[in-house]
Amino acid sequence: MSLRDLRREDFAYAVDIPTRWADSDAYGHVNNVIYLSWFDTAVTRMLYERGVLSLHDCPAIGLCVESRCEYFAPVEFPQVVDARVRIGRMGDKSLRYEVGLFLPGVESPAAAGHFVHVFVDRRTRQPTPLAAASKAALADLVVAGV
Amino acid sequence: MSLRDLRREDFAYAVDIPTRWADSDAYGHVNNVIYLSWFDTAVTRMLYERGVLSLHDCPAIGLCVESRCEYFAPVEFPQVVDARVRIGRMGDKSLRYEVGLFLPGVESPAAAGHFVHVFVDRRTRQPTPLAAASKAALADLVVAGV
Amino acid sequence: MSLRDLRREDFAYAVDIPTRWADSDAYGHVNNVIYLSWFDTAVTRMLYERGVLSLHDCPAIGLCVESRCEYFAPVEFPQVVDARVRIGRMGDKSLRYEVGLFLPGVESPAAAGHFVHVFVDRRTRQPTPLAAASKAALADLVVAGV
Amino acid sequence: MSLRDLRREDFAYAVDIPTRWADSDAYGHVNNVIYLSWFDTAVTRMLYERGVLSLHDCPAIGLCVESRCEYFAPVEFPQVVDARVRIGRMGDKSLRYEVGLFLPGVESPAAAGHFVHVFVDRRTRQPTPLAAASKAALADLVVAGV
Repeated sequence: MSLRDLRREDFAYAVDIPTRWADSDAYGHVNNVIYLSWFDTAVTRMLYERGVLSLHDCPAIGLCVESRCEYFAPVEFPQVVDARVRIGRMGDKSLRYEVGLFLPGVESPAAAGHFVHVFVDRRTRQPTPLAAASKAALADLVVAGV
Repeated sequence: MSLRDLRREDFAYAVDIPTRWADSDAYGHVNNVIYLSWFDTAVTRMLYERGVLSLHDCPAIGLCVESRCEYFAPVEFPQVVDARVRIGRMGDKSLRYEVGLFLPGVESPAAAGHFVHVFVDRRTRQPTPLAAASKAALADLVVAGV
Repeated sequence: MSLRDLRREDFAYAVDIPTRWADSDAYGHVNNVIYLSWFDTAVTRMLYERGVLSLHDCPAIGLCVESRCEYFAPVEFPQVVDARVRIGRMGDKSLRYEVGLFLPGVESPAAAGHFVHVFVDRRTRQPTPLAAASKAALADLVVAGV
Repeated sequence: MSLRDLRREDFAYAVDIPTRWADSDAYGHVNNVIYLSWFDTAVTRMLYERGVLSLHDCPAIGLCVESRCEYFAPVEFPQVVDARVRIGRMGDKSLRYEVGLFLPGVESPAAAGHFVHVFVDRRTRQPTPLAAASKAALADLVVAGV
């Protein structure tokens, strides 16, 4: 199955991300780099909402070790992107998120890809296991066999 | 009256802008530059909604010739900013927008400032008058004597 | 061969990209998204220098259809990144760039990945062949069998 | 004297900042917000070079409380901006930087403005005096009567 075939219902988490004027580049549509910022934002927002990360008092932080995006359709200001997230692999110290970006009224994604976090201790930056409570809080997002 | 004394009710236009993870800088709160991106986004979104600008078929574009911001309080991911806009001066070929950024549950602004657009022809980049229809579409946002 | 094994001498094009203060995120190092912006900048700068693209009078533009990055080491302000580019596949209407980002005094890359441009007509946005002159201008960057 | 009359020789500190592809917005030139990012970068780089700030072990950090920019000319990728900094007011706990952005071969600035840092303790975020050594390290940048 190709990324282009992903649909909204393939993802259990969703958040709306409005475009910003400065997101566009000289070609008049949103620059490819911004899509990755939306991946980053959707994933981190989900982790905050589920209590896996927090800005100040969380001993672990998630460092991005890999990101990938395929671009299928342009996005233009002032569109609002429906960013969807699922977890394709839950490891002991890492998570692989799969993300789809959808535009209003369009069934297939404008872009899709993945993003891998390794969890490390905030101070030592050494890999650290995900807490059992964190794994439980994310369980409904995990998909099998992707 | 200082910018810090501005309140939500001083502005006739409002739009929510969610923070993005990459908005923060190494001090852990949103970087000062991003606030200006929110000004830019709130103003341009308002101009699109009112039909003053559009991405493709509009003969005029608004070029920023001046911006200024005072910062009163930090903003942190994943807060959502309530961006408010009014027009402090409507010239023949320019608009001075006044913008306040408000955080949930806080009466005084996290930041406030202004932003001046000169309208120019999209091709020649020479100043061009605002259409009467545009002025009418913005009339309710204009405040007196600021 | 893994991306981590790439070395400066594996790439024929190089450009220095200084970090900016706002590149860092709340974890104190450069946000993952910015690395992709460096890919984008190094590649586009190379295309401008070789005369393949230009801002105003070029009939073709390059649209990013795929990007991927592996992150090996953090980058911190005010470090200057040595961005290196080569071409892993030269198609009739597309180019696959391979990019490595190197920090001063370090042999292995801080990050590496690829980036695919499809060339389209600026107006119709339909795929368009790369000119023979463009292909010739890029020939020294093409590597075999990656 | 207007900001437009500032010249390179009015500033004692200079750093080159290359444009990035994503700096441009849909109008084809660098977005107004990016200029402020260049202010931020030039000032912070200067503070690092002079030993006033550092990423990790510095007890004080500089928070931006005010920024202002006047825009005189467009900047386009891949231009390199010559960013110049001086200090218009050195307070006990704050610095007002004045910044000019110059393009190759052009005498007058493409943009100019200012930026105010209040220095605060990294942990308590309470205002803290600039060390005498910091003031001495910046003395040559201070101009009188602006």
